[in-house]
Amino acid sequence: MSEGAFSNLAQLSAPFRRFGGSLLGRYLVLAAGLIAMMVLTVPEVRIPAGIWLHVILWLCLAYFAIETVVHLAHARRNNALARYLVSPSGFVDLLGIFPVPIALATGVAPESAWLFASLWVLKLAQNSPGFAQLGRVFVLEAKPLASVLVLFLIVLFLASALMHVVEREGQPVGFGTLPQSLWWAVVTLTTTGYGDVVPQTVVGHLIAALVMICGIATFGLWTGILATGFAAESRRRNFIQTWDVVSKVPFFQTLDPSAITDITHMLRRVEMPARVAVVRRGKVGDCMYFIADGEVEVDVKPTPVRLGSGTFFGELALLGDSIRTANVTTTKQTTLLILDLADFRKMMASHVELARAIEAEGKRRLGHNQQKREFENSPS
Amino acid sequence: MSEGAFSNLAQLSAPFRRFGGSLLGRYLVLAAGLIAMMVLTVPEVRIPAGIWLHVILWLCLAYFAIETVVHLAHARRNNALARYLVSPSGFVDLLGIFPVPIALATGVAPESAWLFASLWVLKLAQNSPGFAQLGRVFVLEAKPLASVLVLFLIVLFLASALMHVVEREGQPVGFGTLPQSLWWAVVTLTTTGYGDVVPQTVVGHLIAALVMICGIATFGLWTGILATGFAAESRRRNFIQTWDVVSKVPFFQTLDPSAITDITHMLRRVEMPARVAVVRRGKVGDCMYFIADGEVEVDVKPTPVRLGSGTFFGELALLGDSIRTANVTTTKQTTLLILDLADFRKMMASHVELARAIEAEGKRRLGHNQQKREFENSPS
Amino acid sequence: MSEGAFSNLAQLSAPFRRFGGSLLGRYLVLAAGLIAMMVLTVPEVRIPAGIWLHVILWLCLAYFAIETVVHLAHARRNNALARYLVSPSGFVDLLGIFPVPIALATGVAPESAWLFASLWVLKLAQNSPGFAQLGRVFVLEAKPLASVLVLFLIVLFLASALMHVVEREGQPVGFGTLPQSLWWAVVTLTTTGYGDVVPQTVVGHLIAALVMICGIATFGLWTGILATGFAAESRRRNFIQTWDVVSKVPFFQTLDPSAITDITHMLRRVEMPARVAVVRRGKVGDCMYFIADGEVEVDVKPTPVRLGSGTFFGELALLGDSIRTANVTTTKQTTLLILDLADFRKMMASHVELARAIEAEGKRRLGHNQQKREFENSPS
Amino acid sequence: MSEGAFSNLAQLSAPFRRFGGSLLGRYLVLAAGLIAMMVLTVPEVRIPAGIWLHVILWLCLAYFAIETVVHLAHARRNNALARYLVSPSGFVDLLGIFPVPIALATGVAPESAWLFASLWVLKLAQNSPGFAQLGRVFVLEAKPLASVLVLFLIVLFLASALMHVVEREGQPVGFGTLPQSLWWAVVTLTTTGYGDVVPQTVVGHLIAALVMICGIATFGLWTGILATGFAAESRRRNFIQTWDVVSKVPFFQTLDPSAITDITHMLRRVEMPARVAVVRRGKVGDCMYFIADGEVEVDVKPTPVRLGSGTFFGELALLGDSIRTANVTTTKQTTLLILDLADFRKMMASHVELARAIEAEGKRRLGHNQQKREFENSPS
Repeated sequence: MSEGAFSNLAQLSAPFRRFGGSLLGRYLVLAAGLIAMMVLTVPEVRIPAGIWLHVILWLCLAYFAIETVVHLAHARRNNALARYLVSPSGFVDLLGIFPVPIALATGVAPESAWLFASLWVLKLAQNSPGFAQLGRVFVLEAKPLASVLVLFLIVLFLASALMHVVEREGQPVGFGTLPQSLWWAVVTLTTTGYGDVVPQTVVGHLIAALVMICGIATFGLWTGILATGFAAESRRRNFIQTWDVVSKVPFFQTLDPSAITDITHMLRRVEMPARVAVVRRGKVGDCMYFIADGEVEVDVKPTPVRLGSGTFFGELALLGDSIRTANVTTTKQTTLLILDLADFRKMMASHVELARAIEAEGKRRLGHNQQKREFENSPS
Repeated sequence: MSEGAFSNLAQLSAPFRRFGGSLLGRYLVLAAGLIAMMVLTVPEVRIPAGIWLHVILWLCLAYFAIETVVHLAHARRNNALARYLVSPSGFVDLLGIFPVPIALATGVAPESAWLFASLWVLKLAQNSPGFAQLGRVFVLEAKPLASVLVLFLIVLFLASALMHVVEREGQPVGFGTLPQSLWWAVVTLTTTGYGDVVPQTVVGHLIAALVMICGIATFGLWTGILATGFAAESRRRNFIQTWDVVSKVPFFQTLDPSAITDITHMLRRVEMPARVAVVRRGKVGDCMYFIADGEVEVDVKPTPVRLGSGTFFGELALLGDSIRTANVTTTKQTTLLILDLADFRKMMASHVELARAIEAEGKRRLGHNQQKREFENSPS
Repeated sequence: MSEGAFSNLAQLSAPFRRFGGSLLGRYLVLAAGLIAMMVLTVPEVRIPAGIWLHVILWLCLAYFAIETVVHLAHARRNNALARYLVSPSGFVDLLGIFPVPIALATGVAPESAWLFASLWVLKLAQNSPGFAQLGRVFVLEAKPLASVLVLFLIVLFLASALMHVVEREGQPVGFGTLPQSLWWAVVTLTTTGYGDVVPQTVVGHLIAALVMICGIATFGLWTGILATGFAAESRRRNFIQTWDVVSKVPFFQTLDPSAITDITHMLRRVEMPARVAVVRRGKVGDCMYFIADGEVEVDVKPTPVRLGSGTFFGELALLGDSIRTANVTTTKQTTLLILDLADFRKMMASHVELARAIEAEGKRRLGHNQQKREFENSPS
Repeated sequence: MSEGAFSNLAQLSAPFRRFGGSLLGRYLVLAAGLIAMMVLTVPEVRIPAGIWLHVILWLCLAYFAIETVVHLAHARRNNALARYLVSPSGFVDLLGIFPVPIALATGVAPESAWLFASLWVLKLAQNSPGFAQLGRVFVLEAKPLASVLVLFLIVLFLASALMHVVEREGQPVGFGTLPQSLWWAVVTLTTTGYGDVVPQTVVGHLIAALVMICGIATFGLWTGILATGFAAESRRRNFIQTWDVVSKVPFFQTLDPSAITDITHMLRRVEMPARVAVVRRGKVGDCMYFIADGEVEVDVKPTPVRLGSGTFFGELALLGDSIRTANVTTTKQTTLLILDLADFRKMMASHVELARAIEAEGKRRLGHNQQKREFENSPS
C-alpha cells in the first residue's frame, strides 16, 4: 500500500470522524455489533432474522476497518506506524478486523466465526484513561499481591488434597480425583459456591469451613492491598495532572516552587465541555474555581461577564454568606481547577499574597454587585 | 388549585406534623404500607384479610398524599414550587401517590396495581443526608470506577464466548447460546454462584476458575477505589460541616484564620437531642466538648449548673486524673464540637492562648468543686 | 442473700480464680460446654453417651454459676452491684445460667432446653477489648452506613417487585408472592446465591444481573466506609493508649507537651508476658524499645544486665550496623513502647536533646561491649 | 554424615545452582511435579501413562532432595545448621522429601502416597518476601481481627441454634442436629451459598437474611481492618528498605539526618535486572532516578555515556519540557531510587542545596546535548 493511498484515506477520515467517529457513535456501533453477534447464536432468532443480523455485523466490521485505516493513516503522518502496530491499541484494532474474515475463509460456520466479534469488547478499553492507573496499582503492589496469590494456591492445593482423601470414598464423582477436588476448592475459596460438589462427611465439613474462612481472609488482604495501592497512585496521579495546569496559570506564577507544590496538592483538575452550568445561583457554595484554560460566562445583570484563562470565580460564597450569587456557565471546552472550602481556608492562611489578591477581587465584585442591586432597586 | 386552597392546606400541616409528621411516625406508616403490600400478594392471607389490607394501604396512600400536599404548600410559600416538582424529593412524592390509582383506574387487578406501592421504599432516601456524600464519591472516582466496569465487561464477554465454544456440545441448555453463556458469566464473576449452570469439561473448569479469580480481583479494585474516594470525601465533608459551627463559637473567634483551620480539622460536630447524657460521672474521659449551640446541665452539688452556647466542659478529665467528676445532660437540642484527647494535646501545645483559657477555667472549676466537697464533708 | 453470704463467696473466689479463672481454663470450659451441647442434638451420639454429656453440661453450668457469683461478690465489694447487673457483661453472665434450668423446669425436653446453652458463646465477647473499638467505628460512620443500608433496601424492594411481575407466571413457587421474591433478592444481593430460586426468563436474567452488580457496588461502599472509619478510630485509640504510658516514662518528662504529643504518635505500646525474647542476637533490628513498666534482662557477657522501667534498649542496631548484639528477654510482665526505624530517624532529627541522650548511652554501651570483647579475646 | 561428605555436596551445589537452581527452573520442576501428582489420581490417565508419571515424580523428589542437601551444606558452612532445621524454610524442605518415601515404605498405595507431594506447593512461599509483611499485618491488627472472629462465631452459633429450632421439623436432614445447622450457617455467613441446605419457613428466611447481611458486615470490617493495617505496614516497610540504600548514596550524604529522613519518605526503591530499558526517548517523564548500586547506559550521540552508583538521571524531563531525550538501559543488576514528580517538586523547594546540584547537572547535560545537536545538524 503506497503512501498516496494512505493520504487518500486520511482525507476520508475527516467526514468519518464527524459522523461516526464521535465517542457516542462508536459506542452505539459497538453495542449493535455485540448484540447482533450474541443474537446470532440463538437459533430461534437467527433463522427468521438471519440476513439482517449479518448486515449489521458486516456494517460494524466495515466501521471498525475504516476506523483502523484512519488510525493507521494518522500514525503514518506522525511517523509512528511501527509504534502503533505494536501498541495495545493497534493490536485491538487488528483483532477487531481480521479474525472473523479469516475464520469464514477457512470454512468455519458463520455462527461460530462471528464469535470472534466478541473481541470487539476490547475496544471499550481504548478510551479508558483509567486503565494505566489500575495497571500501575498492580505493578506497585506486585510483591504483596503475589504473596496473597501464593497463599491462595497453597490453601487451594492442600485443601483439595485433604478433601480428596476424606471424601473420595463417599463421592467418587466429586472428589474421586485431585483435579475434581481442586475444582471444588476453587469454587469454595472464591466464595462462589455453585453447590454442584458439596462435602458430606463431618471432617469434610470442617475442612470446607476452614477453606471458606481462609477465602474471606485472602480476599480481605487482596482488597486491602489494592485499596492501599490505589490511594497512593491516586494522590500521585492527581498531583501530576494538576501540576501541568497550575504552573501555567498566571495567578500562581508569582509563587515560589514550594508554594506551588503546596497549592497543587490542594487543587483538583476537572475538564468541562461547553455550555455546562458550573455554579447555580442560590445553591450553597463550598468551593471556588480557577480557569486554567477556556472561558465561562457569569450572568450578572445588566450584561453578562465573560472570564477567560487565568481568572477565578466562586470566591464570594467562600468569603461571604456561602450562597452563590450568580449562574456561571462554560462557553467552550474549559479546564477548571477546583479549590475546596477546607483547602481555601488553608491557602488563605498560609499564602498571604494570594489571600490579598482574592479578597481584593472579591470586594471589588461585591461592591459592583451591590451598586448594581441598589441601582436596580432604585425607583425607575 | 388556587393560592387560597394551598394556604388552607398549609394550615392543616401543623397538626399533621405534630402527629404523623414525626420521623418515627412516618417510618411506621411506611413499614405498615410495605408489609400490607407484600402480604396482599400471598393468596393464603389475602383471601381472609383482604378488606383490612386494603384499608391499611388506602390509609397509607392518603397519608403520603397529605404529606405531598404539605410539601407542595411549603414549596409554594417559599416560591420554590417548580424547583420542588423537578427535585428528586418531589418526584418520589409523586411516584408514591399516582401510579397505584392510575393502575386501578385502567383495570389492573388490585394485587398487581398495589405492587406500585413498592415505590414507597424510595421515601427512605428522602431523609438520608448521606446520599449526597455517597453520590459525590461516585462522581469523584468516576474514571477509575468506569475502568473497572470496562474490565468487568471485557472479562464477561470473552469468558462467555469461550465457554460457549467449550461447553455448548455437552450442555446445550446452559451454554448453547451466547446470552445463556453470558448469564453464567455474570453469576460467576460476581461470585454469586447459583449453580444452575456449571461447566462440566476440564477446559471449562479452568476458564471458570480464572473467571472467579478475576471476579475477586475486580471486586477488590472496586472496593479499593470506593474506600479511597470515601476517605477523601469524608475528610472534606467533616471539615465543611464543622467550619460553619466553629467560626460562630466566640471562644475561637480571637484566633487567626490559620489557627481556626487547624482547629476545625481537630473537631468533630455532633447533634444531640434534648435530655441525653453526654458525660457520666465515674467513666474514663477521653474527649472534651464545646457547645456550639444549645445548653447542657452539669449536676454538681448543691445546685446544678447550666452551660450555654460558646462554653465548654469535660476538660477536667483531660487535665487531671481522667475520671469524669459529674454527669452532663443536654436540656434542649444541642450542637456539640468534640475534641479527642490526641487533638486536645496537640491544641494545648500549639495554641498557647487557648491552652491558658482552658486551664484557667479548669482550675477555677476544680477549686470550686473541692471547696464544695470540703463544705459537704464538714460536720453539719 | 445477706452481705455475709457474699463475703464468704468472695473468699471462695481466690482459689477458684487460681484454678479455673485463668483465661485458658475458661475457654476450655466454654469449648467443652458448646461441643457437648451440639453433640446432644445428634441422636446417634446422644443415646449411647447421654449421661456423660449431661454431666459435662451441668459441670459447665456450675462453673459459669460460680463465676457469676464471683463477679457479683466483686461488684458488691466495689459498690457497683447495680451497674454490674445492667452492664452487658452482667447480662451475659445471667443469660448463661438461668435459661436452661428455667426451660427444664417448665417441661421442655432436655435436648431442646440445653439449646439455650448456645448463649454461652456470648462469653467470648466479655474478654475482647476490641469490641468497643468496632462499636465506635459503627457509631462514627453511622450516617453513611445507614445510607448504604437504605440503598440496599431500595434495590431489594424494587428488584423483588419487578421479578415478581416478570417471573410469577413461569415460576409460581419461587416468585409467586412478593415475600418469596424478596427472599430471592436477599440471597442474590448479598451474592450468597443458593440457587434454590433462579430466574428463567431473559428479562429476569437482565434484572438479576443488575441486582448482582448492585450487590457488589453496595458491598464495596460498605467496606470502604468501614475501612475509613476503622483507620481513623485506630489512630485515635493508639494515641490514647500510648499517651497514658509515655507521660509516665521519666525519659520523656523533660519534654514540652508539644514534643510529647509528637512522640506519642510515633510510639506503639505492646504488653509482653514474662520470659519472652524481645530481641535476638544476630537478627536485623528495625526498632528500639522503651520500658514503660517491668524489667528485661540483656545477656551481655560476663554478667547479664537488668534494665527497669524508664530505660531503653535496642538503639545500637539503629545507630550502628543494624545487627542485634545481644538477646533481650523480659523477666516479668512488661509494657514496652516500640519506636520504628522510620520514626527513630524522625525523632533523632527533630528532638535534639533526646537524640543526644540516646547517642550518649549508645556510645557508652558500645564502648563497654568492645572493652569486654577485647578482654574476652585477650589470652587468658 | 561427616563434615567431609557435606563439603563434597557443597562443591556439587555450584553446577546444580547454575542449571537447576535458577528460580525459573525451580518453578518448572515444581509445576511438573504438582501436575504429575494430580494426574496420577485420574485412573483414565494413570493406567496408560503410569510409568512416565512415576519417573517425573521421582525426578522432582530427587531435585528437591539435592536442593535440601545444598541448603544444608550452605547452612553448615555458616554454622547455622540448627537454625536452618527449625526455620520454616528448613521445615518445608524436609516436608518435601520425607513423607512420600515413608508412606510408600509403610505400604500405602502409590496413588495415595504421592498425595503428600502436594506439600511441595509450600515451596512457593520460600521465595516470597512479601509473606513476612502479610504476617506483620496480622500481628499488628491481631486484637481487632480477633474481635471480628468472635463476632463471626457468635453470629454463627446463635443463628444455627435458632435455625435448628425453626427448621428441624420440616427439614430433619439439613437442620435436624446442631452440627448440621452449623454447616448451613458457615456456608451462609461466608456468602458461599452452596444451596445444599436452604431454609423453607418464613421465619427461617428472615433469620437467613439477617445472617447474610451480618456476613457482609463482618466481611467489610475484616477487609477494613486489613486495609488499615496493610497501609501502615506498607509505609513502614518502604521506609526501612529505602533508608538502607539512601544513606549509602554519596549525593545524599551531605544532608543532615532530618533531611535524609524526609527524602527517604519520598523515594521508592526498585531492583532491576541487567539490560532493562528504564527510560525511553520520546515518552512523557514523570520521575527521576538515583542509582544506588549498579550501572546504566544513556544512548546519547555520538558515544553512549555510562552512569554508575551515586549518580542520577531523568531529571531533564522534570526540569524542562517533560519529554525524555534519551534511552536509558541498565548494564547490570541495578538498584534504583525513584523520585516522583510530586516529590521532586517538594524536594526542589525544601532542600536548596540538592536543588542547586540537580539543576546545575541538568544545565550541564542540556548544554552538552544542544552543542552536540548543533554539531550533528551542521553540514558535514
